[in-house]
Amino acid sequence: MSAFPLRAVIREVGLRDGLQSIRTILPTAHKIQWIAAAHAAGQREIEVGSFVPARLLPQLADTAELVAFAKRLPGLFVSVLVPNLKGAERALDTQADLMLVPLSASHAHSLANLRKTPQEVIDEVARMRAARDASGAKTLIEGGIGTAFGCTIQGRVDPAEVLRLMQALLDAGADRVSIADTVGYAGPAAVRRLFEQARRIAGERFWCGHFHDTRGLALANVHAALDTGVARFDATLAGIGGCPHAPGASGNAASEDLAFMLAEMDIETGIDLPALLSLRAQLAHWLEGETLHGALARAGLPVTFAQPSAIEA
Amino acid sequence: MSAFPLRAVIREVGLRDGLQSIRTILPTAHKIQWIAAAHAAGQREIEVGSFVPARLLPQLADTAELVAFAKRLPGLFVSVLVPNLKGAERALDTQADLMLVPLSASHAHSLANLRKTPQEVIDEVARMRAARDASGAKTLIEGGIGTAFGCTIQGRVDPAEVLRLMQALLDAGADRVSIADTVGYAGPAAVRRLFEQARRIAGERFWCGHFHDTRGLALANVHAALDTGVARFDATLAGIGGCPHAPGASGNAASEDLAFMLAEMDIETGIDLPALLSLRAQLAHWLEGETLHGALARAGLPVTFAQPSAIEA
Repeated sequence: MSAFPLRAVIREVGLRDGLQSIRTILPTAHKIQWIAAAHAAGQREIEVGSFVPARLLPQLADTAELVAFAKRLPGLFVSVLVPNLKGAERALDTQADLMLVPLSASHAHSLANLRKTPQEVIDEVARMRAARDASGAKTLIEGGIGTAFGCTIQGRVDPAEVLRLMQALLDAGADRVSIADTVGYAGPAAVRRLFEQARRIAGERFWCGHFHDTRGLALANVHAALDTGVARFDATLAGIGGCPHAPGASGNAASEDLAFMLAEMDIETGIDLPALLSLRAQLAHWLEGETLHGALARAGLPVTFAQPSAIEA
Repeated sequence: MSAFPLRAVIREVGLRDGLQSIRTILPTAHKIQWIAAAHAAGQREIEVGSFVPARLLPQLADTAELVAFAKRLPGLFVSVLVPNLKGAERALDTQADLMLVPLSASHAHSLANLRKTPQEVIDEVARMRAARDASGAKTLIEGGIGTAFGCTIQGRVDPAEVLRLMQALLDAGADRVSIADTVGYAGPAAVRRLFEQARRIAGERFWCGHFHDTRGLALANVHAALDTGVARFDATLAGIGGCPHAPGASGNAASEDLAFMLAEMDIETGIDLPALLSLRAQLAHWLEGETLHGALARAGLPVTFAQPSAIEA
């Protein structure tokens, strides 16, 4: 019998990874309702947006306002994505709890998506760390290694290169590191191998897996990752999202399906599933016309779900 | 590191579980093309139909003809579903390699779906065994225990009852037993627990898992089941199917997504995935207007897929 973790965190990234990839621009008022309802449903980590220039991603231009709102909710750990030092300075100003710096293990994807080499991102992380330490802010820095299982442009990505970049991020001052299957190439065997090695390098500082459900394996990949002791996963409500540089990519793991799987495994998330499904119904209304994902919302909870002893029996 | 099996079988049940649950009646000529193409793509076990009265399931009325065709394909193991002794006698006449007898662990589902109690099914299996032995046919008898993780009518199903029924099926003369999550209530924890216990009872005679993807967990459930040593799974191409007595149920695990996951795990299935995806495209054409499932066909194979060392790295 495997030693799965007793608790896990579903980090909601729908407001960032989801909303940046769809056509609909969600008004700030709706985003605030989303954050409040996710918090009320028990979610305790939310990536609320991205400090990128508003001309590039106008749909995320309200990130500072969202951080300010989210930080007022008790016990909520508020993350933002920052692509560079300038974004990091804005994140530090807002006192976000964590800023995630994306790095692409695929050199080709890195140039196409971030317009930087992986080494340039690592150098930028060192500058962010210096700025953070100088500012006195408590904002954690997470280096998020994307295209870690391959990429549509370059093809194969060497796991040894992913691990080398992970060590370099830590050496440059990242407090946390994470691994993302940006284009949905990962399967459970590769996840298990890479996550085991990542844990050996970074220990508890390797703290998050980010899976896209492009080829239907997101939850099987989470299942394999849990077996390595990793206990934090990015997900988006209704599985919204994708990647502009990964053709055909559907969204992230759906938060509600992931929460259902973890509940069945008796892994505590603190999430009230009926409340999360209500929020999803609200989101479906806000995002009318967008393609949504996730199976649980279509089928509904099992009639046995109200009896945890039944579903666990 | 878990000891996953080195080889696994995807038993294609789309011609039975899939076609019985959708509106389109596929002509026999197309079914024959499907069987031939699945065989050419490397599938070696196919459930070609069901010996039920044609007035109940007219779409499966050509089962005898399909068995006759399928048995001519080299190395193909041909299964049929039989609900009762009369169906079993027809299966024996056709020399099918295996006949699957469905039993519902949920008493309520059993009465609603099979119009028999579980004990009545077990008694019928004993009569089938006597008929098989008397006939001299080599047709194996598989007792397939459905609603093993709960049911929409009755709710909770006690795992101890599933195991008791499994032992009773073996005692009545079943050569093989299998477990089905008919309504998509299973999660990986329950699968692991029940499959471990089933293996202890039936050993290698417990040989197949049947998962519906109703709540998105079919592949995670297969992943958990593989870890218990089970190496045969039912699936339907394009995930077609459902259950008339399980409202909201989508289809089985999609054969092509399952084959992709097993390939990534370096578990040999003998399946040529591009050929299987071509067949799926053909099926989508035949079943125009029906809801199909499966993620791989939408996204396509990874660009790295032609290089097994890359996807396995």
